[in-house]
Amino acid sequence: MKAVGVVVEYNPFHNGHFYHISQSKSKSKSDVVIAVMSGHFLQRGEPALLDKWHRTKMALNNGVDIVIELPYVFCTGHATLFAEGAIQLLNAIGCTNFAFGSEEGSIQPFLNTFTALKKHEEQYNALIKHYVTTGISYPQSLYKAYEEVRQIEGNQTIDLSQPNNILGYHYIEAAKRFNLSIEPLTIPRIQAGFHDDINTDSTIASATGIRKAIFEQHHFRDVKQFVPSESFKVLENWHSQYNSFINWEAFWPFLRYAILRNTPEQLTRFADVSEGIEFALIKAAKKSETFSQFMNQIKSKRYTWTRLQRMVTHIYTGITKEQLHSSTKPSYIRLLGMTKNGQSYLSEYKKQFQLPLISRVASTKDPMMLLDIRATDMYALGVQLTSGKLISSDYQTPPIRL
Amino acid sequence: MKAVGVVVEYNPFHNGHFYHISQSKSKSKSDVVIAVMSGHFLQRGEPALLDKWHRTKMALNNGVDIVIELPYVFCTGHATLFAEGAIQLLNAIGCTNFAFGSEEGSIQPFLNTFTALKKHEEQYNALIKHYVTTGISYPQSLYKAYEEVRQIEGNQTIDLSQPNNILGYHYIEAAKRFNLSIEPLTIPRIQAGFHDDINTDSTIASATGIRKAIFEQHHFRDVKQFVPSESFKVLENWHSQYNSFINWEAFWPFLRYAILRNTPEQLTRFADVSEGIEFALIKAAKKSETFSQFMNQIKSKRYTWTRLQRMVTHIYTGITKEQLHSSTKPSYIRLLGMTKNGQSYLSEYKKQFQLPLISRVASTKDPMMLLDIRATDMYALGVQLTSGKLISSDYQTPPIRL
Repeated sequence: MKAVGVVVEYNPFHNGHFYHISQSKSKSKSDVVIAVMSGHFLQRGEPALLDKWHRTKMALNNGVDIVIELPYVFCTGHATLFAEGAIQLLNAIGCTNFAFGSEEGSIQPFLNTFTALKKHEEQYNALIKHYVTTGISYPQSLYKAYEEVRQIEGNQTIDLSQPNNILGYHYIEAAKRFNLSIEPLTIPRIQAGFHDDINTDSTIASATGIRKAIFEQHHFRDVKQFVPSESFKVLENWHSQYNSFINWEAFWPFLRYAILRNTPEQLTRFADVSEGIEFALIKAAKKSETFSQFMNQIKSKRYTWTRLQRMVTHIYTGITKEQLHSSTKPSYIRLLGMTKNGQSYLSEYKKQFQLPLISRVASTKDPMMLLDIRATDMYALGVQLTSGKLISSDYQTPPIRL
Repeated sequence: MKAVGVVVEYNPFHNGHFYHISQSKSKSKSDVVIAVMSGHFLQRGEPALLDKWHRTKMALNNGVDIVIELPYVFCTGHATLFAEGAIQLLNAIGCTNFAFGSEEGSIQPFLNTFTALKKHEEQYNALIKHYVTTGISYPQSLYKAYEEVRQIEGNQTIDLSQPNNILGYHYIEAAKRFNLSIEPLTIPRIQAGFHDDINTDSTIASATGIRKAIFEQHHFRDVKQFVPSESFKVLENWHSQYNSFINWEAFWPFLRYAILRNTPEQLTRFADVSEGIEFALIKAAKKSETFSQFMNQIKSKRYTWTRLQRMVTHIYTGITKEQLHSSTKPSYIRLLGMTKNGQSYLSEYKKQFQLPLISRVASTKDPMMLLDIRATDMYALGVQLTSGKLISSDYQTPPIRL
């Protein structure tokens, strides 16, 4: 059996994801699709709309055969770390290919870009450093440096102002860095841009657009046309049980309490908090009754929204610099769910996996897994605060079977 | 003008307190009564039923002329520290006497006890140490050691199994230790014991009894007969605004989140958490949907209820060992409220006070005051969580004037 891997958040699962999965499977001629999915906190520094068990169900209902968890360390990390964790895990579980959606749409320009940047590495890094010192954000500095390198060696390289191209590039870089046998594929993204609003004439919308519709219109049924019907049932199921989807506003009382419970100096213990932002966080938290008021007070040219949200993620979960940086290499494959087809694949190949497959979390001392469990516990308390209802814990919950 | 000091929590103010104030004033032949009152967290390791501003109003309505705040460091400390803070502050604000209620009722046996324990200090301390190693709690060890010393030199000494005698003894010890000019007086307590239930035939009940009636009967109007009418109005006022009185149950979502956001090792950073109790705290918090479930799981022969509650107080406020122990000498007198009579006293004598009088909290770097402000902020967030309403902050609120 041949397996193709995809890196996903499914926040929530929508028609574009469905298309991506079927394309990935056919283009790679695979028998099995394996998704490495972020847990309860996502790369943009946000809690997931609904818990990882519900998101796993959506995936298994729509063509994914196996869902494994991207550990907290990676799924809340910057693009490089995120990609390293995801691609190493897909390689470890035996995928021949990984497939990502991109604005670019074909793989050769990604490989050209990698070669070009490798060739001009020194100059590229010096340029990044230079732009950072001018006071602009890191991603912006990266982009400006890249555009300069592209002036010299730009033949058939990718446009790195496009968010999916950036992510894809990091995946390829990770595979090359660790010399992995897994091979890249890319699927052109269709219709919806990454940050667009939803368009009612279409059945494709980005997850960002769908989330916006959910929270701004307060009526999640408006998104029905953009998600497969089985996914929509899972959304309805969550909503009827927990009364709302999760975002930072729901967790704001806890987050605010977590921020104000510290001196500025103590706040710098948490991952990503540094350079004096701690004073601004406390000042803003004092004055803000909502998360959006808070963010509007701390945003600045220097910090991207994502970077600020990642800081508060780590404050919310209470995860310190020391904890986050204690391990950056995946040490296990955590199984969240599987179809029958996925189960056959696991039975056949699991002895060849490069990392242990964890189906049930028992008492563990693995520092990376302890952070995943912490993240689930903190997400669960937030859900309980806003809904009064419990979600499944990491200890009780066996892999979902379909 | 002559001033007498009292050490109070007023949680809530009741008829027994009224009696104590009038007796203190007449017995000491004073013109002014000054209360040093705990802020938002109390000596038994609990949040106050209602905020310090409301409790100040109750005091000023019923014979107290000046209310000053006992800083967090002292009001959540063990009896020795609590007494040291309170008596030093009353001395610093110029009180000639301090008056405490006691089961004993006359002052000489307290002084005899002090002399006896001073004389046999070495033996007494050795006995305490011995009993602690047998695994019983510190207060119990103290009591057993004392009873042995009393066998030798027990003529006209006090019964230290009585809670108000214990507190009073600590006040006297503090005054002697710091060689203060302030002189002790004691007022016999009437009718209600310290921990009794309320008795509907009487107008005197302990604050403990009143709190029990409030929370167990869920109808605070039952306590009307035990509190002066002006106090009752303040209680009604609070209740109509905030819908409930505060106890740990109200703060449990935050407290639970604060506990579970830590590794066991990280929990030991907080004041009073040590000796392995951190593992029990986390285990119990995971399983407990209410504070009372939590406490029932962690209580043991080794730890008194009070000691456990003080630990969770510091976890709740996020105050570390380092912060709590950074200053143990009062460095300011924080004015919470005054009557006209109190104001005259302050105008006349404030230049002679041994510590600066703080009427309005501005930006401060005093580590002790920063903890008071933190405690108010954390109490405020808890009240807001349970009621959706704000309380006054330390920065905005001028002293209450009556």
